Amino acid sequence: MSDDRVIIDGLQYCKWSPKIFRQLHDGGVTAVHVTICYWENFRETVANISQWNRWFEEHADLIVPGRTADDVRRAKAEGRTAIVFGFQNCSPIEDDIGLVPVLHDLGARFMQLSYNNQSLLATGCYEAEDPGITRMGRQVIREMNRVGLVVDMSHSAERSTLEAMEISERPIAITHANPHAWMPALRNKSDTVLKALGESGGMLGLSLYPHHLRDKSACTLEDFCAMVERAVELMGIERVGIGSDLCQDHGDEVVAWMRNGRWTRDVDYGEGSKDAAAWPEPVSWFSSNLDFRGIADGLKRRGFSDDAVDRIMGLNWLDFFERSFGPQESR
Amino acid sequence: MSDDRVIIDGLQYCKWSPKIFRQLHDGGVTAVHVTICYWENFRETVANISQWNRWFEEHADLIVPGRTADDVRRAKAEGRTAIVFGFQNCSPIEDDIGLVPVLHDLGARFMQLSYNNQSLLATGCYEAEDPGITRMGRQVIREMNRVGLVVDMSHSAERSTLEAMEISERPIAITHANPHAWMPALRNKSDTVLKALGESGGMLGLSLYPHHLRDKSACTLEDFCAMVERAVELMGIERVGIGSDLCQDHGDEVVAWMRNGRWTRDVDYGEGSKDAAAWPEPVSWFSSNLDFRGIADGLKRRGFSDDAVDRIMGLNWLDFFERSFGPQESR
Repeated sequence: MSDDRVIIDGLQYCKWSPKIFRQLHDGGVTAVHVTICYWENFRETVANISQWNRWFEEHADLIVPGRTADDVRRAKAEGRTAIVFGFQNCSPIEDDIGLVPVLHDLGARFMQLSYNNQSLLATGCYEAEDPGITRMGRQVIREMNRVGLVVDMSHSAERSTLEAMEISERPIAITHANPHAWMPALRNKSDTVLKALGESGGMLGLSLYPHHLRDKSACTLEDFCAMVERAVELMGIERVGIGSDLCQDHGDEVVAWMRNGRWTRDVDYGEGSKDAAAWPEPVSWFSSNLDFRGIADGLKRRGFSDDAVDRIMGLNWLDFFERSFGPQESR
Repeated sequence: MSDDRVIIDGLQYCKWSPKIFRQLHDGGVTAVHVTICYWENFRETVANISQWNRWFEEHADLIVPGRTADDVRRAKAEGRTAIVFGFQNCSPIEDDIGLVPVLHDLGARFMQLSYNNQSLLATGCYEAEDPGITRMGRQVIREMNRVGLVVDMSHSAERSTLEAMEISERPIAITHANPHAWMPALRNKSDTVLKALGESGGMLGLSLYPHHLRDKSACTLEDFCAMVERAVELMGIERVGIGSDLCQDHGDEVVAWMRNGRWTRDVDYGEGSKDAAAWPEPVSWFSSNLDFRGIADGLKRRGFSDDAVDRIMGLNWLDFFERSFGPQESR
């Protein structure tokens, strides 16, 4: 790695390969939260974990499991990238609260309570109505708090998100989304949510997925950095990081899976449309793990101090990992 | 069997045994919708179906699969009882709409969209809020309509139930519940729901489960029959049957499973309470399949005509099976 900055990405969903593991290394990425489930059930998620376990053996020079903040620090010292497992849905626990500690034992550190649709726990942002956290959701949040599995509300609807913050005894995360005031996508978050997230000690990972960006694929680095400044003003400098939502090298059948899972016979186009069903074109200044330094440079040009850039690019996530990944102290 | 009446029970959940199969026969029960799932997932439900398939072989003198109205008529002619499979929850389809036709092929004919809690499809009657039918729920109702799997809203909340009737292109059922106006249990149904159910060609199975009865285990047959009269006035003589919710011979660990599934670490007591967590005592006049004739006699004493008693005791369900269990004609 070419510099001393800790770079942590709050979410990626790539078609992982030795090429991308090498890019993580060459791009100086210290840790990345990787999505290992959209709609997968428990057994399918375990198969994905097994695949990662094999990759950890085969590519031990490049990647290591990231289960604690110390794992991340060690990875930094060794010039490797720590891989933190997370789920974009609660489907891995199926209907079984007992799977929360089981999956934490297997390395999971983030779990979204819902992905676009209503789940057993919470409402997704594409539902017409949001009744908030369900009976099972209240139980599961408490159990996630107990073991140290972070509540992630990136794809959840507003009321559910606000209630999750109220119910959770530990700070939650929105690992990949932008302010709705900047880009009014259904997936982006209101100032109400962002302010509450900041005040409760949570973390926002700012997204580079074109559907979440103003002008989408034509969004400029300068406009993005101006938005970061606004998010920091709203939430505080300790509450903002990157959650790039990098979805590199996947075929379009994968974005169709993300949108349709197994829940519909009609085709759902999610953030796309029938005429634009494919993956969006990435912005010119961020298409792989090699591009984080350019974002840091853009933030410096925007006027952020070195300390602020360090926080946004990684130290805030590292601090959040430190506070979040272990058992709850008060219990 | 000792008389010619067709007796059909809209729902039972017994600890099935040769003793109960014999009681079905001796009580003159022509068909019964049996619950084969509360929280079971697909694989567990298939195991329950396999068990029934073995019982069909071992007790072919007493029971036969009931997949069509013709199966029920044939069972009547042969002096056997037709067994209709149903689920009290949508857990057997997990997150997969493709399991709807698969489970219909395996014999399922009723599926509740939710059991007390929020499901992926609809809201249960114990949730604080009811946002109605979800995105997946709309897709699944259409698929259930297509193949002939009846939507059952017995344990669902009010708005979800009304929306299910609107969305479903075929009549739905509430297989086991009573009018809320008679007994204000959370599980019983408002006049609004019952009227809409009657007008849409649906069916109500009146429950004999003590928690759904006025005065619970002390409810008299006379009071029950007066309630039947009121339900018929509200819904029409063709829309009312029995759905006894007979839960015979189970240990208390089973009622705990029904209430708690795998969704909670706290203990949920459902319709019971901490001090009354066990199965309720059945009413003196209905504790097994031997007791249906007594109900018919009670209805006659209340003033119902022979034709009306025949309808309530079985012919209405038979007619509903005829209309509901095959593929949708218009598609």
